[in-house]
Amino acid sequence: MATIREVAKEAGVSVATVSRVMNGSGYAHEDTRKVVMAAVEKLNYKPNEVARSLYNRKSKLVGLILPDITNPFFPEMARGVEDYLQQFGYRLIFGNSDEKRDKEIEYIDTFLQNNVVGMIASTSEEANENFDNLEIPVVLLDRTAEKLPAVYSDQKTGGRLAARVLLDRGSTNIVLIRGPVEIKPVYERYTAALEELTQAKVNVQVMDSSLTLQGGQSCVRQLFEQYPNTDGIIACNDIVAAAALQEILKRGIRIPEDIQLIGYDDIAFTALLHPPLSTIRQPAYEMGAQAAEMLIRKINQEKIAETHKKLPVSFVERQTTRRKVEKP
Amino acid sequence: MATIREVAKEAGVSVATVSRVMNGSGYAHEDTRKVVMAAVEKLNYKPNEVARSLYNRKSKLVGLILPDITNPFFPEMARGVEDYLQQFGYRLIFGNSDEKRDKEIEYIDTFLQNNVVGMIASTSEEANENFDNLEIPVVLLDRTAEKLPAVYSDQKTGGRLAARVLLDRGSTNIVLIRGPVEIKPVYERYTAALEELTQAKVNVQVMDSSLTLQGGQSCVRQLFEQYPNTDGIIACNDIVAAAALQEILKRGIRIPEDIQLIGYDDIAFTALLHPPLSTIRQPAYEMGAQAAEMLIRKINQEKIAETHKKLPVSFVERQTTRRKVEKP
Repeated sequence: MATIREVAKEAGVSVATVSRVMNGSGYAHEDTRKVVMAAVEKLNYKPNEVARSLYNRKSKLVGLILPDITNPFFPEMARGVEDYLQQFGYRLIFGNSDEKRDKEIEYIDTFLQNNVVGMIASTSEEANENFDNLEIPVVLLDRTAEKLPAVYSDQKTGGRLAARVLLDRGSTNIVLIRGPVEIKPVYERYTAALEELTQAKVNVQVMDSSLTLQGGQSCVRQLFEQYPNTDGIIACNDIVAAAALQEILKRGIRIPEDIQLIGYDDIAFTALLHPPLSTIRQPAYEMGAQAAEMLIRKINQEKIAETHKKLPVSFVERQTTRRKVEKP
Repeated sequence: MATIREVAKEAGVSVATVSRVMNGSGYAHEDTRKVVMAAVEKLNYKPNEVARSLYNRKSKLVGLILPDITNPFFPEMARGVEDYLQQFGYRLIFGNSDEKRDKEIEYIDTFLQNNVVGMIASTSEEANENFDNLEIPVVLLDRTAEKLPAVYSDQKTGGRLAARVLLDRGSTNIVLIRGPVEIKPVYERYTAALEELTQAKVNVQVMDSSLTLQGGQSCVRQLFEQYPNTDGIIACNDIVAAAALQEILKRGIRIPEDIQLIGYDDIAFTALLHPPLSTIRQPAYEMGAQAAEMLIRKINQEKIAETHKKLPVSFVERQTTRRKVEKP
C-alpha cells in the first residue's frame, strides 16, 4: 500500500500539504488540492483509518503542567510524555507552575479554553482540588492523590535505599538534607531515609534546602560549619548533591574515603561530575511515557487495570560512595 | 474594584470557574453560572477590558519548536519564551524536533490545525522553507534566515572570544572541538574560533563531536590518544566541555596549569563542576523572552525596528582557564 510520503513525492508537495488536503484543514490552493488528489487516486492511497479517526477529532491537544523545566529531571519526563503522545498524533500545551497554585489554575483554565482532551500534571499537593469536576481525564505524574490516576516512583524505597547505602558502607555521622516538605515525593523520600537512619542508631542531623543550585550551595556551606565531623551526606536531589560535592572538593575532604555522598534522581549530568555521583535513579522518561499511555487509555475510555502506577527506583553505584563492606 | 478572586470566594467556586462563566467557554452548570453572575453583580466586578479582549480571541496559542529540551540550554530559552508570553495570556504548544525535518513538518502542521497565532522555532537550516507561505508570523530563535525575523546571539564574537582567551593565557597546542556543521550557530562559532587560532600561528587540531554527553565522551577519549601534548581545548558546547573536564581529571592532568578548557553556552550546571568551567555565555533566557516579544509585536501588527536581533555573548571566567598573562 502507498504511504503518505509516496503520495507527497508523486504530487511534488510536502507530506504536510498532503495531510492538510486529506484532512480538509485548509492552507492548500485548489490547484495543489487537485494535484494531491490525482496522486492519491493514482497510487490508490488509503490513509490508516484508525489514525484518521483520531486525527479528525476536534482537538488532539493534551495539557502538561510541570513545576520547572530548568530542573533537568523534568525535561526528561516531558520528553517521555511527548515522544509517547506524538506516536498517536497528540500535541502538548505546556506550562511551568513553579509549584504555585495560581499559575496552575491559570494554566488549567487556558488548557480548557483550548479544548484539551486531557491533562498530565505534576501538581503541588494542595492544588489537587483544581482538578475536581473537570470533564476530561487527568493523570498525575510524579505526584499522587486518592481520586486521580497517577504514575510516580517508589519514593519510600528510594529514601530507604539511600540511607542503607551509606550505612552499609560505614558512615556514622550522617547529614540528611531535607527538601521542601510541601512537595510530597521529596517529603516521602526524606521520611523513609530518616526512619532507616534512626533505626541504625548512628548520628543523624537534618538540614533544609530548596531543590535549586543556590539553595544547595548555601545549605552545604552551613553544613560543614555546623557539623565538621560529617562522614555521609544524603541529598534531596542531584542538584543539591552536586553543590555538596563541589564544597567537599573545595575543602580538600577526600571522597569517598572521608565522606560519602548520595544524590537522588540520576539526571544526566551526574555521570559527568568528577568523581561521578552515586545516586538513586528515578525512571523519569519512563514515568512520562507511562503517564501518557494511561492518559490515552482514559481518553479512549479503555479500562485501566492499575490507576496508581508505582515505578521502581534503583541505586546507581558510581564513585562518591565506597565499595560495600561486609560487617564483621 | 473587585478582583476575580473575590468573586470566586463570594460565589464559593474556583477562579477557573468564574473565568469560564465570564468567557462563556462552557464547563459550568447553569446553577453555578447563576451563583457566579450573582456574585459578579453584588461585587460590581468588571474584568479588565484589555485582558478580556485578548482573552476572547479565537486562539491564544503559540507554537514552539526546539531541537531537544533534554539539552539544558533549551529549557532556559523555553522558560524565557513562556514567562514572557504568559504575561499576555498566550500559551505554548511545544515540540522537540531532534533537528529532524520530518518532525518539524509534523509539528508545524498540527500547530496550524490547532490555530496557533504564531510560531517560534529553532529550526534546522534546511527546513526553513517549511515556514514559507504561512499566514501567521514566525520568529526564529537561535537560528537565522534571510526572510524571517530572528533573535540569536553573536556566535562569531563568541567563537573568537573563546580562542582569544586560550591564546592570551598561553595555550599553544590547541584542540578545537567542532560540533555538527549542519547546525548553523555551532558552525559559526567554530569557523570564527578557527580563524582566530590560525592567525595566531599556534598548533591547531580539529576534532568532531556531537553535542551530547555520549558524543563528547567518545571524542575526548580519542583526543588525548591522538594529541597527548594538548594544552588547550575549545569545546563546541558546555556538555562536551564537561566530558573533557572529566577525562582531564581522570588522566591526572592539572587544570588550568597544564591544560586550559573553555565551554560554550553557560548552562546552569557548569558553575557546579569542580573546578567550575570557564565558558562563553549565551543569554538563553533573554533570547527566548525577546523572541516572544518580537512575535507578539508581529501578531499585533506593530512595526518592528530590528527584525534580526543579535544579542551579545560574554566570557565567564571561572577556574579552567588561567589568569591572563601580559606578553613580554
